[in-house]
Amino acid sequence: MSPAETVRRASPADAQALAKLLHDFQKEYDEPTPGVAALAQRYEKLLGSGEMICLLVGDGPDGFAQLRFRPTVYSDGLDAYLEELYVVPSLRGQGLGRALLEAAMETSRAEGATRMDLGTAETDVAARKLYESTGFTNREGSPDGPVMLYYEREL
Amino acid sequence: MSPAETVRRASPADAQALAKLLHDFQKEYDEPTPGVAALAQRYEKLLGSGEMICLLVGDGPDGFAQLRFRPTVYSDGLDAYLEELYVVPSLRGQGLGRALLEAAMETSRAEGATRMDLGTAETDVAARKLYESTGFTNREGSPDGPVMLYYEREL
Repeated sequence: MSPAETVRRASPADAQALAKLLHDFQKEYDEPTPGVAALAQRYEKLLGSGEMICLLVGDGPDGFAQLRFRPTVYSDGLDAYLEELYVVPSLRGQGLGRALLEAAMETSRAEGATRMDLGTAETDVAARKLYESTGFTNREGSPDGPVMLYYEREL
Repeated sequence: MSPAETVRRASPADAQALAKLLHDFQKEYDEPTPGVAALAQRYEKLLGSGEMICLLVGDGPDGFAQLRFRPTVYSDGLDAYLEELYVVPSLRGQGLGRALLEAAMETSRAEGATRMDLGTAETDVAARKLYESTGFTNREGSPDGPVMLYYEREL
């Protein structure tokens, strides 16, 4: 099977698997993680309430995409936010990320989204190449417009 | 009155004023705008349903902050997204943006948010200075971590 054929939508029953993947993702980038148990509990709740849509790829599962949606003033459609995109390290470079991203865009369109945004690190060259080759831009307004930066803080 | 004393929370009755401000903002940066009438209709709906919180500053009103919230798997709190922060050109440099941003953080905490994120242009030096002086970072993980980029595409 091609990676694309193994992409499926996560149900609340996948909460534990998603929690494990996100926990590993956070640890890989030295980001804080509340641990698998707390993550699983929250995934179960947010997937069950429809607050979040996740897609899984592979038998492991071996990666996931995490999507949020918000109604917007800019259009009658929804804005989609790609909150996470992750593939386990040993299976990178085989098209799993691309399959997830393409399915995430397709799912978002089916949900009524007309735009997608995301944040990523400048040094994550593989991810940036994937985003740029699938039509994403980090230039404002036009291809030679200013670079768009992502900022955050704890409150 | 100091700028901070003029900050107030927008109600659906402020939809027209918000629409006018966002329309001007979009035009200033050569971004597409659906026009004041369509924007006003959507602001009225999203403010009325609680999908969005906006803050206004000054008598004009002279600027606004636009906030979105989402429950998250990373913590028990909400993630806040600062979708827009705008002050009319003639009144910039007088602390209105800072007053809006500080009120936006305070409002977000009161709503239960524990983190805030946003996107901005590399060339918008005044905005970046404001964000950086109020505790925002665009470095991942640590102050010398990689720069975080914001990407988007139409779907």
